[in-house]
Amino acid sequence: NEIDIAVIPGDGIGPEVVTEAVKVLKFVTNGGKQELKLTYYKLGAEHWLETGETLPEETLSAIKQHDAILFGAVGAAPGDTRIPSGIIEREMLLKLRFSLDHFVNLRPSKLYAGIESPLSNPGAIDFIVVREGTEGPYVGNGGSVRTGTAHEIATEVSVNTAYGVERVVRDAFRRASERERKHVTLVHKHNVLVHAGHLWKRTVEAVAVEFPEVTHDYLHVDAATIFLTTDPSRFDVIVTDNLFGDILTDQAGAITGGIGLAASGNINMDRTYPSMFEPVHGSAPDIAGQQKADPTAAILSVALMLDHLGMSEEARAVEQAVEKEITSRQELTDNRTTSEIGDAIVALLA
Amino acid sequence: NEIDIAVIPGDGIGPEVVTEAVKVLKFVTNGGKQELKLTYYKLGAEHWLETGETLPEETLSAIKQHDAILFGAVGAAPGDTRIPSGIIEREMLLKLRFSLDHFVNLRPSKLYAGIESPLSNPGAIDFIVVREGTEGPYVGNGGSVRTGTAHEIATEVSVNTAYGVERVVRDAFRRASERERKHVTLVHKHNVLVHAGHLWKRTVEAVAVEFPEVTHDYLHVDAATIFLTTDPSRFDVIVTDNLFGDILTDQAGAITGGIGLAASGNINMDRTYPSMFEPVHGSAPDIAGQQKADPTAAILSVALMLDHLGMSEEARAVEQAVEKEITSRQELTDNRTTSEIGDAIVALLA
Ligand SMILES: CC(C)[C@H](C(=O)O)[C@@H](O)C(=O)O
Ligand SMILES: CC(C)[C@H](C(=O)O)[C@@H](O)C(=O)O
Repeated sequence: NEIDIAVIPGDGIGPEVVTEAVKVLKFVTNGGKQELKLTYYKLGAEHWLETGETLPEETLSAIKQHDAILFGAVGAAPGDTRIPSGIIEREMLLKLRFSLDHFVNLRPSKLYAGIESPLSNPGAIDFIVVREGTEGPYVGNGGSVRTGTAHEIATEVSVNTAYGVERVVRDAFRRASERERKHVTLVHKHNVLVHAGHLWKRTVEAVAVEFPEVTHDYLHVDAATIFLTTDPSRFDVIVTDNLFGDILTDQAGAITGGIGLAASGNINMDRTYPSMFEPVHGSAPDIAGQQKADPTAAILSVALMLDHLGMSEEARAVEQAVEKEITSRQELTDNRTTSEIGDAIVALLA
Repeated sequence: NEIDIAVIPGDGIGPEVVTEAVKVLKFVTNGGKQELKLTYYKLGAEHWLETGETLPEETLSAIKQHDAILFGAVGAAPGDTRIPSGIIEREMLLKLRFSLDHFVNLRPSKLYAGIESPLSNPGAIDFIVVREGTEGPYVGNGGSVRTGTAHEIATEVSVNTAYGVERVVRDAFRRASERERKHVTLVHKHNVLVHAGHLWKRTVEAVAVEFPEVTHDYLHVDAATIFLTTDPSRFDVIVTDNLFGDILTDQAGAITGGIGLAASGNINMDRTYPSMFEPVHGSAPDIAGQQKADPTAAILSVALMLDHLGMSEEARAVEQAVEKEITSRQELTDNRTTSEIGDAIVALLA
């Protein structure tokens, strides 16, 4: 009865926040009957600079053997021109999400007591975004002709399948059915993106029939950004495509006090491959190695991981410890070190 | 010396707000040497219900003859299932933008004194979004196969050309060069949408050379929604594609007190066809016909129109009258009627 985790600390503040997440993971599992096995993988921009590797096939195969993946953050320092722009994001992070069929990109948004929102009237923000993770404009299905000339044409193709849309929509309804408000909002832009939009809309209508207790509505993505500003407490479960989900979850992070607190799971609900849990924030090279990063998002990602691994009691305990710790803060950016915050959360777990 | 305007009041609150916009237009032009000719076109959801027409070729040809177009709003009441979803938007509004080559979709965002932002710390918000208007995912270049089956695939193609990107980027730099802060921010997602993103990035680099006095930077669209929440005063001129521009300008409307105040111009800078000026808000069927709509966005759109027609003095006068009127408001939703607000602005112009 062992849990076997692949750990990818990555670049910048990644290793620091992952250290705290591992601290929490160790504490929680040692209390139980579980044994914890951790295997570290060195990947990311630093690793690319040293080896030229993004994600070799053998590494990917090895990662596939674990129960789950704990991911820190990747990305070169801005302005570091040695690394081709976007290569780590696409050939490592997105490659993991796609190769491991992480079709549910789960991103909870909660405004914790004690955290100041940049909105003057935020209300009670507590929703989850179920972002599709394996399709949409993220498929890398673009190209260009006459590149670099005055006659260049560059295209990007958003690919959406009934198979891909249905499984993520069903996941969203299932999650909604387990929540108090039991409401799903589909976000798309079907008045312009007719074909993809109608596939999403039809799928929501069809899946909704299986969940008579769950209500649902629809918002265009532009209108959704308005409501995230003026009335975010209206949302319970948002289901949307890969690109709209990327945009809305950063906005959602901002209104709940910054993506420094936002956790995420890249989840393969069929469990054919390990799921991956990562803070939404990036590698923040400007504050890396200084113990200035807030490990909360990484620790909350551990809670999502425990949940996925069936350890929901432990997941709740971590969430509650984090919530208590946050509520006790005077202000968001206090002067404690990354590891002091991790220790405080462990202390509350004890 | 006549100005010859096509007026498309449209649906819902469109006719009411356009009446006030016309009031202002009449006042401003009668004071000068200009004669004002107005030709009304009945188009929109109501018109479709009566005739089945969206935008007939003869109507489009007739509209092309005018100097500019004043547009209210279109759209059926939500839940009106008699009208195929999105048909008015695509076959009328977008058809006008595309047929008349409105490549600059100009959307200023300003937080006026006296208007409360939903942000607790908005700072001095005063930027413009130059949204591309004739390309991107809006080209209608999508399709689906095996539609309605479990094997459906639906695609949407974003089309970007050097020609299309360059002209709008140059327009953004030109506008920036005439502003105080002289700064352009390109918003895209080039780490994922590599081909389109790199065309945009390369074009910005190339055009920037022509404008040494203008600085520029880059933001991913997800990060842009964060900064629009936490630090919107950082923006001066945003240039972006059709879809990202749609999303960001609604968010920009929200942080500056609601899209009830947001004006826009669909501009053909080559002047091969008339440009079209419209409030960003929709037809708001729920409050239509009750004199509850705020005509400010429509009136500010008239200012953009006057500017485009070379009447910059009149444009400034309208803007200043609006600014004064807004500053004198006690709260955003006061109890005055649509026409009382229009009258108040005209009184301030006098
Ligand atoms: C780094 C980037 C490829 C990634 C995405 O766009 O999905 C990030 O923004 C995220 O949201 O996890
Ligand atoms: C109605 C719709 C087609 C339109 C758009 O997406 O451009 C609207 O949202 C806008 O921003 O003017």
